[in-house]
Amino acid sequence: MQHFECDYLEGAHPLILKRLTETNLEKTPGYTADNYCETARQKIRTACEKPEAEIHFLVGGTQTNTCVINALLRPYEGVIAAQTGHINQHEAGAIEAGGHKVIPLPHTQGKLEADTIDRFITDFYQDESYEHMVNPGMVYISHPTEYGTLYTRGELEAISHVCKKHQIPLFLDGARLGYGLAAPGTDVTLPVIADCCDVFYIGGTKVGALFGEAVVIPQPGLIRQFISTIKQHGALLAKGRMLGIQFDTLFTDGLYLQISKHAIRMANILTDTLKAKRYRFFAEPQSNQIFLIADHTTIEKLKKEVSFAVWEKYDDEHMVIRIVTCWATREEDVKALCNLL
Amino acid sequence: MQHFECDYLEGAHPLILKRLTETNLEKTPGYTADNYCETARQKIRTACEKPEAEIHFLVGGTQTNTCVINALLRPYEGVIAAQTGHINQHEAGAIEAGGHKVIPLPHTQGKLEADTIDRFITDFYQDESYEHMVNPGMVYISHPTEYGTLYTRGELEAISHVCKKHQIPLFLDGARLGYGLAAPGTDVTLPVIADCCDVFYIGGTKVGALFGEAVVIPQPGLIRQFISTIKQHGALLAKGRMLGIQFDTLFTDGLYLQISKHAIRMANILTDTLKAKRYRFFAEPQSNQIFLIADHTTIEKLKKEVSFAVWEKYDDEHMVIRIVTCWATREEDVKALCNLL
Amino acid sequence: MQHFECDYLEGAHPLILKRLTETNLEKTPGYTADNYCETARQKIRTACEKPEAEIHFLVGGTQTNTCVINALLRPYEGVIAAQTGHINQHEAGAIEAGGHKVIPLPHTQGKLEADTIDRFITDFYQDESYEHMVNPGMVYISHPTEYGTLYTRGELEAISHVCKKHQIPLFLDGARLGYGLAAPGTDVTLPVIADCCDVFYIGGTKVGALFGEAVVIPQPGLIRQFISTIKQHGALLAKGRMLGIQFDTLFTDGLYLQISKHAIRMANILTDTLKAKRYRFFAEPQSNQIFLIADHTTIEKLKKEVSFAVWEKYDDEHMVIRIVTCWATREEDVKALCNLL
Amino acid sequence: MQHFECDYLEGAHPLILKRLTETNLEKTPGYTADNYCETARQKIRTACEKPEAEIHFLVGGTQTNTCVINALLRPYEGVIAAQTGHINQHEAGAIEAGGHKVIPLPHTQGKLEADTIDRFITDFYQDESYEHMVNPGMVYISHPTEYGTLYTRGELEAISHVCKKHQIPLFLDGARLGYGLAAPGTDVTLPVIADCCDVFYIGGTKVGALFGEAVVIPQPGLIRQFISTIKQHGALLAKGRMLGIQFDTLFTDGLYLQISKHAIRMANILTDTLKAKRYRFFAEPQSNQIFLIADHTTIEKLKKEVSFAVWEKYDDEHMVIRIVTCWATREEDVKALCNLL
Repeated sequence: MQHFECDYLEGAHPLILKRLTETNLEKTPGYTADNYCETARQKIRTACEKPEAEIHFLVGGTQTNTCVINALLRPYEGVIAAQTGHINQHEAGAIEAGGHKVIPLPHTQGKLEADTIDRFITDFYQDESYEHMVNPGMVYISHPTEYGTLYTRGELEAISHVCKKHQIPLFLDGARLGYGLAAPGTDVTLPVIADCCDVFYIGGTKVGALFGEAVVIPQPGLIRQFISTIKQHGALLAKGRMLGIQFDTLFTDGLYLQISKHAIRMANILTDTLKAKRYRFFAEPQSNQIFLIADHTTIEKLKKEVSFAVWEKYDDEHMVIRIVTCWATREEDVKALCNLL
Repeated sequence: MQHFECDYLEGAHPLILKRLTETNLEKTPGYTADNYCETARQKIRTACEKPEAEIHFLVGGTQTNTCVINALLRPYEGVIAAQTGHINQHEAGAIEAGGHKVIPLPHTQGKLEADTIDRFITDFYQDESYEHMVNPGMVYISHPTEYGTLYTRGELEAISHVCKKHQIPLFLDGARLGYGLAAPGTDVTLPVIADCCDVFYIGGTKVGALFGEAVVIPQPGLIRQFISTIKQHGALLAKGRMLGIQFDTLFTDGLYLQISKHAIRMANILTDTLKAKRYRFFAEPQSNQIFLIADHTTIEKLKKEVSFAVWEKYDDEHMVIRIVTCWATREEDVKALCNLL
Repeated sequence: MQHFECDYLEGAHPLILKRLTETNLEKTPGYTADNYCETARQKIRTACEKPEAEIHFLVGGTQTNTCVINALLRPYEGVIAAQTGHINQHEAGAIEAGGHKVIPLPHTQGKLEADTIDRFITDFYQDESYEHMVNPGMVYISHPTEYGTLYTRGELEAISHVCKKHQIPLFLDGARLGYGLAAPGTDVTLPVIADCCDVFYIGGTKVGALFGEAVVIPQPGLIRQFISTIKQHGALLAKGRMLGIQFDTLFTDGLYLQISKHAIRMANILTDTLKAKRYRFFAEPQSNQIFLIADHTTIEKLKKEVSFAVWEKYDDEHMVIRIVTCWATREEDVKALCNLL
Repeated sequence: MQHFECDYLEGAHPLILKRLTETNLEKTPGYTADNYCETARQKIRTACEKPEAEIHFLVGGTQTNTCVINALLRPYEGVIAAQTGHINQHEAGAIEAGGHKVIPLPHTQGKLEADTIDRFITDFYQDESYEHMVNPGMVYISHPTEYGTLYTRGELEAISHVCKKHQIPLFLDGARLGYGLAAPGTDVTLPVIADCCDVFYIGGTKVGALFGEAVVIPQPGLIRQFISTIKQHGALLAKGRMLGIQFDTLFTDGLYLQISKHAIRMANILTDTLKAKRYRFFAEPQSNQIFLIADHTTIEKLKKEVSFAVWEKYDDEHMVIRIVTCWATREEDVKALCNLL
């Protein structure tokens, strides 16, 4: 049986386990106040070219989204997201549990367009009763998106411009950020993201860590006492150095990008085979997630030998399925899958 | 200047003010525990043919929706509503502030269809990851809808059937219920609603009262200690008898239906004229709200002599506008408006 | 049977009903955007000597407290209150439902002392783990307090000074404000309150209105878009002019103070009799609420002819009971009660 | 420098890291649906003598408390806790952020007494206005408590009895449960706890794991679809097997109890020395936390060579300080500390 259903099937990059083991009996302060977190912060600041950036480490994506969004919004504001945004679909209502509406906008293969956002906000404030409605208080985008697609630098800058124009912050969910940065031909780098976004996070859980997400706030002080919001949401890890050690390792000698590139190479092998075998793509494959349109017969047949995610209905005869590679995907497994397809 | 922008421009039916004045210096217990509330409850139970029904009086619609929805949902559940539902659009995020997502479904002129709901819920639980998503925990409909349209008895029963099948409650927002009950040709009566819904409310604010909504729970005990949820939401009126006296008056000698019928007669005069003058309707006029498609020139011209609501964009050249009658609309004003159109 | 259990037994001052009746069929914009609200705002600004103050009208006290506190606090902050504060005891958890802790401090007969607050906040920030605790984000006091006691001008100024020193707002709950302003010997006036507080409200429900509380924000803009928070909490009255007309009436020709003085005079007659008859007071009677310590036999005997509130246990043999007068209390009833005591 | 400030200074028991490393590249389903979680669940069920128990794994204590409390309470209910309860003091308002009040009751060295709870609830429902107040919806206790003290079996059973009498659930926070179970002379075992409590959790973070808490629900189905509440609170670990492997290891061959006993032995050495040197104890030392009363001079002197927690003010001259041992404390460090004292 081949496993390609998601990018969190394995543990962590072996170097991480090695360092966790080496440092295991050291005594350090809790709650990410240790030196490992501090060196990890420095390395991330350097990678982002933002020497002043404020950096926080959290355990998982849903809690990171919740903490950031709760900290940025006023009570009567909501967060703009693509209809397909993770916060709108797969977080069991975490944003609403914090008191805020997710304002879903139409998307193109998971991507929001600057114009869509601009038009929505402009129209919103032209409505005489805007004070009776949830005000758009920030924009949430994912990069790569939930369909694996990527923004270009120009698209990100355009969205950033719209946010600045309307004086609301832009937050980028980078749960799979490594796979976006490692994609061939992308012009989006960490410094570009740090220039465009008010807050973003660098995903560890899906990119080589046991768990962990690094929140970057390029302008320190944007969020007051964020640590308290993190604690209130149960997202402040007691043994915080587990996060510091993992991100320090990932941001030493370019490991984060290097393992991401491996996942992309594995995905590309798959994509080439799928194209050759005339599979239909639901979204243009750009990172480590591949979305296909498959009929029920094909799905049933494949299911016997490969595990993958059945994503959503396409039409009465077809479903959208998702195949995912990651930092740990072995080339031999990819080749075995290619033979099966 | 003629005013047709909404149905809460005037005070209350004169009988209500008369009774408030007559009883003004009586001393009664607070918080709707007085005898006026009790007789009003009895009259509403009789009108609904539900002698056991539990009845609560609140001040306004947004707080009523919030209290009912909060009391009915589990933490991880959301409320299904039409995309155009009042709770999804014009309550400043009150439902989300209480921790719950509004799950918007497609509608037809403001109406949800039983099939749409059924298909959504069925598909929802077929998704392997439904535990990671907001579960549909109840259905919210408005009657009349936000576009003034009406459900038929058959449609209500079909929705009720779907809710029972999936074991979730059905809640009907009756902010303008009188105007629905008074519409010519409708087969929806209070007993029909009481049979179909787990909770509904009879709107007073827009139908002859200074303020007030009467929540009806046909099966008493469905919501435990609802009074505490009402209090927690700041929706428990200290001088509660103001609500009792108003609803008692409205449900004496058929006043509620009688004044609603007047509003419908006024709306029908307008509709006839509009049809004669070949105005385009955005939704089939069925109650006291009339939605028209009008171009910018017409709108600007009308605005000089009539106030109405500009509801939403129709296309680049046209807007949807809303004209509303109510229990207090004078026939002479309607005729003046007809002449202007 | 004599009724002295609370100050919301009757309707409204007759002048209010008269004006509601006179204006009943006028058509005005909704949601407190009408001219009656505007003139009421002007009169309140004048009474407070704050020509720029921002003023909002809400229906009841619990919702007013919730809206103000939610609008002022950051997510990780709580509100300091006396242990006996209304928000800590009798609002069914409304503040917590909005996500905030009430931080209860010791009190003297319902009053917080500036020193208590100062010491608490100073100690709080000396704790190394203050970021893991609910930060004191504002101070809530009631005037008169829940025990009917009154702050002096000096005490208010001292609390205000402590709040400014720690850069947190001071909010005064004036549900019974009239009875505080009308107390003999008080040096606390509306302008004094407006100088000391960042937000306060002038209670209508318990002082002559059918319902209604007027929130005063002396420095406009302190709360951004407060109307949206009010709407979100279901506290924005559709027929908002009901609030404007009531407060306009109360603030015309000194009616608010005049009817409050009547209540105080009635309370003083009672207090004199109680002192003469050697009743024990639980708190020094200063406004319209009188708190006595009574044994079970006395209570049972009194209960047959008077209704009053049994407030709390004093010791195994005694309870604290509350007797209340209001703007509508008749002198003959007070005398009858005096004879019974 | 000796470190005794808390019990989460080190990583995990070496066996845990060994097993995480051995299994690192295995592919398993996410979100605690893997086989390691399943075997861990079985071992915990066996240890609790509850073969049907429902078991969930979460990452940390604050999120565990929040999820359980949110799942058990109705909107208008609060949770009874000792004034010193972790949820009342050190979770940055997490419970209130979920909409619920913590109802603090007086305690004895961190312990609640059955009588205190019983009297509070009985009195509560005798108040006529209990519907206007936060209803006591559950009881939260910690074992060991925040002062390191322990309940006896009799005390637990008495509290359990009171909860059953009032039909509310009992929840036990076992963040340091191992140290309670390992204490000499205790008659509280896992089966005893499982018999007394409706929900409890077995702490991993402070007892040998990198992180992780195991929630035990002896009667399955008490909480409906708890996984969704966990997900909504961002507490569902993507690579859930990290939790399964850790708890499987801790519950194999009695490791959990064995390492806990070590901590207790280390604490006892310290206690003996402290008693011999006539230190004053703030609470009777019963588990791995030792609370002392020390004057400022002693504190300053000790601080140069030992790190410990300054817990709270005792009086103007003294503070309460806390010294903690854990599974990883080395005997040589304890002896070094004894020499310093």
